Amino acid sequence: MTAPLSLQGAILALERFWGEYGCLLWQPYNQQVGAGTMNPATALRVLGPEPWNVAYVEPSIRPDDGRYGKNPNRLQQHYQYQVILQPGPDAPQELYLRSLAVLGIDPALHDIRFVEDNWEQPAIGAWGLGWEVWLDGQEITQFTYFQQMGGVTLDPVAVELTYGLERILIALQRVKGFREIQWTDGITYGEVNLQGEEQHSHYYFEVADVGRLRSLYDLYQAEAATAMNAGLLLPAYDYALKCSHTFNVLDTRGAVGVTERARFFRDMRGLVRQVAEGYVEQRRELGFPLLAEDQAEGLATSVPDLPQPSADPQPYLLEIGVEELPVGDLASALTQLREQVPELLAEQRLEHGEIHIWGTPRRLAVLIEELPPRQPPDENVVRGPSVRHAFDAEGNPTSAAQGFARGQGVAVSELERHEMEGGEYMVATVRREGRPLPVVLAEIAPAILDGLRFERSMRWHPGEDSVTFSRPIRWLLSLLGSERLPFAYAGLIAGSETRALRAAGGQLLDVPSTGAYAALLDEHHVVIDPAERRKRIAVDAQLLAEGVRGEIPDDAELLTEVANLVECPATFLGEFDPEFLQLPQPVLIAVMKKQQRYFPVVKEGALLPYFVGVRNGAAENLELVIEGNEHVIRARFADASYFVRQDRERALPEFRMELGRLAFQQQLGSMLQKSERIEKLTGKLAVLLGLDASESKTALRAAHLAKADLATGMVVEMTALQGVMGREYAVAAGESVEVARAIEEHYWPLGSDGQLPKGLAGLTVGMADRLDSLIGLFAVGLAPTGTADPFGQRRAALGVVQLLLGRELDFDLRVGLQAAAALQPVAADTAVDQAVEFVARRLRGVLREEGYRPDVVEAALAVQGCNPWRVQQAAEQLSAWMVRSDWQLTLDAFARCVRIIPNDETTAVPDSNLFIDDAEHGLWEVIQAAQSALAARSGQPSVDDFLSAFSTTIPAINRFFDTVLVMEKDAAVRVNRLALLRRVAAIADGTVDLSKLEGF
Amino acid sequence: MTAPLSLQGAILALERFWGEYGCLLWQPYNQQVGAGTMNPATALRVLGPEPWNVAYVEPSIRPDDGRYGKNPNRLQQHYQYQVILQPGPDAPQELYLRSLAVLGIDPALHDIRFVEDNWEQPAIGAWGLGWEVWLDGQEITQFTYFQQMGGVTLDPVAVELTYGLERILIALQRVKGFREIQWTDGITYGEVNLQGEEQHSHYYFEVADVGRLRSLYDLYQAEAATAMNAGLLLPAYDYALKCSHTFNVLDTRGAVGVTERARFFRDMRGLVRQVAEGYVEQRRELGFPLLAEDQAEGLATSVPDLPQPSADPQPYLLEIGVEELPVGDLASALTQLREQVPELLAEQRLEHGEIHIWGTPRRLAVLIEELPPRQPPDENVVRGPSVRHAFDAEGNPTSAAQGFARGQGVAVSELERHEMEGGEYMVATVRREGRPLPVVLAEIAPAILDGLRFERSMRWHPGEDSVTFSRPIRWLLSLLGSERLPFAYAGLIAGSETRALRAAGGQLLDVPSTGAYAALLDEHHVVIDPAERRKRIAVDAQLLAEGVRGEIPDDAELLTEVANLVECPATFLGEFDPEFLQLPQPVLIAVMKKQQRYFPVVKEGALLPYFVGVRNGAAENLELVIEGNEHVIRARFADASYFVRQDRERALPEFRMELGRLAFQQQLGSMLQKSERIEKLTGKLAVLLGLDASESKTALRAAHLAKADLATGMVVEMTALQGVMGREYAVAAGESVEVARAIEEHYWPLGSDGQLPKGLAGLTVGMADRLDSLIGLFAVGLAPTGTADPFGQRRAALGVVQLLLGRELDFDLRVGLQAAAALQPVAADTAVDQAVEFVARRLRGVLREEGYRPDVVEAALAVQGCNPWRVQQAAEQLSAWMVRSDWQLTLDAFARCVRIIPNDETTAVPDSNLFIDDAEHGLWEVIQAAQSALAARSGQPSVDDFLSAFSTTIPAINRFFDTVLVMEKDAAVRVNRLALLRRVAAIADGTVDLSKLEGF
Repeated sequence: MTAPLSLQGAILALERFWGEYGCLLWQPYNQQVGAGTMNPATALRVLGPEPWNVAYVEPSIRPDDGRYGKNPNRLQQHYQYQVILQPGPDAPQELYLRSLAVLGIDPALHDIRFVEDNWEQPAIGAWGLGWEVWLDGQEITQFTYFQQMGGVTLDPVAVELTYGLERILIALQRVKGFREIQWTDGITYGEVNLQGEEQHSHYYFEVADVGRLRSLYDLYQAEAATAMNAGLLLPAYDYALKCSHTFNVLDTRGAVGVTERARFFRDMRGLVRQVAEGYVEQRRELGFPLLAEDQAEGLATSVPDLPQPSADPQPYLLEIGVEELPVGDLASALTQLREQVPELLAEQRLEHGEIHIWGTPRRLAVLIEELPPRQPPDENVVRGPSVRHAFDAEGNPTSAAQGFARGQGVAVSELERHEMEGGEYMVATVRREGRPLPVVLAEIAPAILDGLRFERSMRWHPGEDSVTFSRPIRWLLSLLGSERLPFAYAGLIAGSETRALRAAGGQLLDVPSTGAYAALLDEHHVVIDPAERRKRIAVDAQLLAEGVRGEIPDDAELLTEVANLVECPATFLGEFDPEFLQLPQPVLIAVMKKQQRYFPVVKEGALLPYFVGVRNGAAENLELVIEGNEHVIRARFADASYFVRQDRERALPEFRMELGRLAFQQQLGSMLQKSERIEKLTGKLAVLLGLDASESKTALRAAHLAKADLATGMVVEMTALQGVMGREYAVAAGESVEVARAIEEHYWPLGSDGQLPKGLAGLTVGMADRLDSLIGLFAVGLAPTGTADPFGQRRAALGVVQLLLGRELDFDLRVGLQAAAALQPVAADTAVDQAVEFVARRLRGVLREEGYRPDVVEAALAVQGCNPWRVQQAAEQLSAWMVRSDWQLTLDAFARCVRIIPNDETTAVPDSNLFIDDAEHGLWEVIQAAQSALAARSGQPSVDDFLSAFSTTIPAINRFFDTVLVMEKDAAVRVNRLALLRRVAAIADGTVDLSKLEGF
Repeated sequence: MTAPLSLQGAILALERFWGEYGCLLWQPYNQQVGAGTMNPATALRVLGPEPWNVAYVEPSIRPDDGRYGKNPNRLQQHYQYQVILQPGPDAPQELYLRSLAVLGIDPALHDIRFVEDNWEQPAIGAWGLGWEVWLDGQEITQFTYFQQMGGVTLDPVAVELTYGLERILIALQRVKGFREIQWTDGITYGEVNLQGEEQHSHYYFEVADVGRLRSLYDLYQAEAATAMNAGLLLPAYDYALKCSHTFNVLDTRGAVGVTERARFFRDMRGLVRQVAEGYVEQRRELGFPLLAEDQAEGLATSVPDLPQPSADPQPYLLEIGVEELPVGDLASALTQLREQVPELLAEQRLEHGEIHIWGTPRRLAVLIEELPPRQPPDENVVRGPSVRHAFDAEGNPTSAAQGFARGQGVAVSELERHEMEGGEYMVATVRREGRPLPVVLAEIAPAILDGLRFERSMRWHPGEDSVTFSRPIRWLLSLLGSERLPFAYAGLIAGSETRALRAAGGQLLDVPSTGAYAALLDEHHVVIDPAERRKRIAVDAQLLAEGVRGEIPDDAELLTEVANLVECPATFLGEFDPEFLQLPQPVLIAVMKKQQRYFPVVKEGALLPYFVGVRNGAAENLELVIEGNEHVIRARFADASYFVRQDRERALPEFRMELGRLAFQQQLGSMLQKSERIEKLTGKLAVLLGLDASESKTALRAAHLAKADLATGMVVEMTALQGVMGREYAVAAGESVEVARAIEEHYWPLGSDGQLPKGLAGLTVGMADRLDSLIGLFAVGLAPTGTADPFGQRRAALGVVQLLLGRELDFDLRVGLQAAAALQPVAADTAVDQAVEFVARRLRGVLREEGYRPDVVEAALAVQGCNPWRVQQAAEQLSAWMVRSDWQLTLDAFARCVRIIPNDETTAVPDSNLFIDDAEHGLWEVIQAAQSALAARSGQPSVDDFLSAFSTTIPAINRFFDTVLVMEKDAAVRVNRLALLRRVAAIADGTVDLSKLEGF
């Protein structure tokens, strides 16, 4: 074994490799950029149709990754090696793996994985589909099919490779961290860059002057605009980069609030978009000089002949070979195949035996057993002219009948009479022979591919056709029995070969027959059945855990995810320093599960210093794999530890004061000011929501501290831990368990089916938080537009609805919002209506999803829109009434009264002296009785109350209308009768507006 | 012949070469830097004692080099390849040449030259000694022995190599300009970077917002200070770099005035110095981690034995082999050797034959003929005790005498008596035998080396001894007849070998004897005699010029310079596009002579489109050399043409308005305001200097336009052309010849022996310019300190003196300065005295240099200090009087009168009624006569007037003193006599203060 490459040796090796491939070798950019992508050699050059292959090192600056040189692989400056291949080559993954081999990375000794990562850089309006490449659990490369830059769609799509050189070198040289990497003989990375890590981290986190940075940002932005206006895109882009870096530093200083961040992003994205669009235009004006005139056409391959049909039923196998599918897309594809394959077969009238649907990240397989040699024949009855028009007076077929018969290919004499759709028609029975199975399958197979839909798809094969897929399709295997059944799809011709595990070389494997498929794959260690993979992982993981006297808690979600990440699961046990167990368990678990997809190992509910990981590949040669994974988790934990240790140096209330540095929104002040408003509003809401003294006290203290953890390092790092860390740090700071819990719970529910707060304290704080955001943001004119909701207003409104419905709280939003409005630093009263209406829209959606009829929801909303829980109650009760057999009578009776009332605001009391008929007296009596009944109830009447009361009046109503004429000529009598009917209508007051119902 | 390397191939070749040598391979910096030097990998890493070898590409940004992509090799961004070797290797030039060979540059086919260039970057307090390396006339590399960075002295000295990649690739690939360079297969440099050149040039020259850039600068500076205060040197340095780039852009926008520039530089230098000093301190605290513990010691070589003396006289040859000496240092070394070698021989009492002093840039040679086998004996007479103390009463030698004799190594009896210095002493005659010639020469040879002094020397051999030299000494040849005469110097042992031409391989050549030396070198094409080289060049150049029917005008200075740039001159004729002849001739000549050291070819005074260049090396294989040189001049002329064309688009008066953007000095306003002041002051001075109406009109117009050319591109580019371009552009704008000439001449004299303006108009404008600067700068408290004169005040004052003396102008500076003061935007009256005194100091210097006795100068200055020409006149006339035989009598007579006068201000008129003696009457009469004679003269009296008048009074004075006692007891008589003498003294009024004379 030769000595591993030095860092500079590795760079030179990559330069040679990509230079020989045909890349232009470029240089790092002369601005502080966060990634090689932002170098104009990528960001601008990928735009437009010109081919562009380039490779370069990019020392990338990410201020908030600074760790003062104390983390093994997290650095404020890390070295990327960036490669752009546009248009992408046919097999970019294999090309990439060859480049790893040049560095000395042997796939047999490592676990190399392509893990979904749809990369996105909102600040420059860029995104792509692709993967993180994991080497033994460590992300070493971002591999992206670059879709958009500056909002401009890439055509052709570019393949972007971004190597993380430090991580690769740590693995290659088997050292503990970046400091020990040999840069060149006798000089380590630490000797070269440690001082910089320390000083720049210190500068970014503690020293950079926020006021000056804001001024710099503004100047850069203005200068960028000046350059743009002069058509100088490249200088403008430089200033955009300066904006971006300055923003990053501000962010690292903790000086950017959530809503302000959105503004920064919008500004920067807008700027970069202008540059990008202008760039394409300028290249167009230059005639796209790098565009070779004879662009290679996509190969127009011809499809071989189909096999002859056999006499007996045969099985059919379709395998779709792909570049690694995202976990979610794999799961979804399997589901879709299970639904769609039978449907497609049925459409073609094909009987079939069992259908097997299998899949791994690299292949989807469909095996259909016992397909008949041909389709059965097909009979279709086609309607022709009516009998009346089909025969003339003499009873001879008219030209209409003759034409119809000719058109359907039958003799006129074969037409038959048929009664249908209330008439008598001539019909033809058209019969088609079933086609041979191979012909039908050659249609079904591409239809299977066409039918698949993914959350996000790409046009991955440039300029050829419009096929889109989750990831590029790399091969198609199509076997009917033991014969190839060729068809063309997306530039490929289906063949009879599959591919081995990539880690085992990925060679082509000839599949002799459908029956041999599963065995062949098994022989080559591909476990094609996801359930089998899950089982193996679960069993092996549990065994490994038992080996250290621990166990793996059930976690179906993680198990499914992990099983869908590999073709051949090999489970291994890794260890970490027990020191790390001092970290809060939620932090450790979040790191292991979310970041690394490891199974935590526990004993009696407590974590043990182990984890179980899953390699994609053989169960041999696990040493380097385990070493690598342990390195990764050490770095991850060290990072979390860094934050927690730093955070613990101060008590939670101290962080609260730092919220002053975090802007919430320019006009609405800092997060500290928001925090103060939440606290005040919590006091008011506690009364409105009826909290007891103890709950109120808890709520107020929790409100005081609720946002404090936003200023802690751990939350800045992993926003998902907001609230969780607040609780941890609150307990550490000596707060009561209730207060701590309320701090965490004020964020709940976290999603549309998230858990609700257990205590009223947390709920009240959360309500205050959301009402404050809603009223404030509307007051300053910020509202979500289109599908965009940059400030999370929809989420906040939905949360309010979920809380009130979930906890069945009778709460008038208008009152709450008015209280919130009074606390805003801007005039906000006028925004109350808008906010109420906005929440009502969420409520409407929730209720419809719950299955209420739209008209029912509208009827309830129209009256009680400010009180979600009451709206829901109304809808529920109304729905129950509406299924009664006498409902139509009830509604009709009510409608009769209401419809005749003129649309004015008269409120005259009926005068019994003016009654002429008994029916009037009778009605008035039952009305008064109903009113008394309602009035006897405590609180606001419900729909049940209203309808129960109203029901008692129905006979009197009917008699009234049967007996008297409301529109009596005598005005006094008429007005008095209308007043009487108004009293009927008024019984509904405050409950529901039945006029919104269909059929009213 | 293989295909030349692509740009990226060349970079990879250099990476490999320097990586294998042991350099750490580094990356370009993430800031816009003007040069690789500013990358911290150089700027900071060279500080302190740690070894550091590094190599990297640096895309360097120099805004004012932007040419919109239109110049063949001038770019706002060019690619440097930067190498630092610290400590430097033994033969860095040879190592460098090997790296060129790796690129495919064959020295036999090119002219590779090391041309002095003492690199300096004032903005970062950095400088070094070294060369530009020329490839066929093109500067392709800066080769520097790096002496100081951030004001910190480098120890050990670093070798810094900065390759200009574009220029190297243009030559390698034999293309016309940067656009055609193949970057990689199928892609040219132009395709990659032309758009950037166009847009960034446009931005830097026309669009960048000056106000915003100034704000950015200030913010950067403040942020740098904040970082510094926190001890964060690296972030502080980043901001210093941002300051530097921002300054460069401001400068390119033409927004930085001369004096403001000085302020910027001071600020930046101060900042970088702080960083540099802090950096060394921080590395020291870290224990200089890269410092290996066992530093290799300098080799302690032992010196072989000296040869035996021969019986006959012998010649001695010393050759000092050096890295290329600067032209000036070579000339100065030759002069010094001519003076010092005979002195050193004389000191050692060595007779000798002819002494030959020769030299080329790479060697200094001294050949001394006919040296005797030994020194002659030496006799020294040493003074001992006085005779009185040498013998006791008995006449025996005292212990003092005995001790003295013992000390001198003689017997007491050998002491002799000697009259000396007014006494009688015992002396010893000490005689020493002469030492053998080899022993003496072994002392003389190093003394020759030690005796050489250079304008700027370096400690070039790190940490070994304190020898300094203009450039590193690389070998020593020391031959006595045919035998080696070894001695040690600066770590070298003198041997018997010389070296061939570097271009021919530079191999060692054994020199069998002194006599064979010249022939051997001649055989190897080294022309050791500068005169011979000059002759060959002159003859060959003239021949080449005649070949195109032209001639080479005499230019001894250029000839000497060119001859001192080569060891073996090979003259060649180059051609350029006659289009360029449309440029003003002074521009073409300046470019050819100053920038390229070419001989222009003329015909009847007009330039022809040819030039004669001189290669260092063989006269064969000149094709590539000529091609390269023609490329260079094309690029240079294209550049000049670019400026002139751009300038000509507007008339000169338009440029004047742009002076508003150029700051002169913060408090003194813009150059436009200065220009307005000059114009006003010119009006006043025209009267004071007696210009006639026509001259005044010319002067006023010239003053109006005098500074306008400072805003033109050509002058911004080549400041030396200020005034020259002003004249050109004035003529083009239709101004009169006189005005145009005055514009040029207002800068005259350009140096201490520069030409004076021919017309009074130019003189007056120049005077106004200088007086305005002097009074203004003093008024705002800016005065030169130490040897520093950043604002050119000394030069301005000297100019004033030169003008007034040279044109014999009777001009009262005080009046002129007061007029200038009245025009300043600040209170300036109080600065007049300071300015007068400042000019007087320059005048004192000038007059002393002209040979006037210091006391004479003081006598004249004391009275007429405000009027330089009158001071000179006074000094001249006084000097003439002082050589008269009767001068002492004259002076004594005057002194007698003046000395006795009390130092008060009494001005009583002598009262003849109080005269007692005739002598008093007599004196009074002659005084009155003298006064009348003086009063009869028109204008201010001169020294001649005074002394002529005074002479007539001398007999009366002498009689007066012989006859009367001035200090008579009677007070009235005494006072009256003193009043009389005061009248004598008053004859001198306004002319000279004789009391300043020695012996007064």
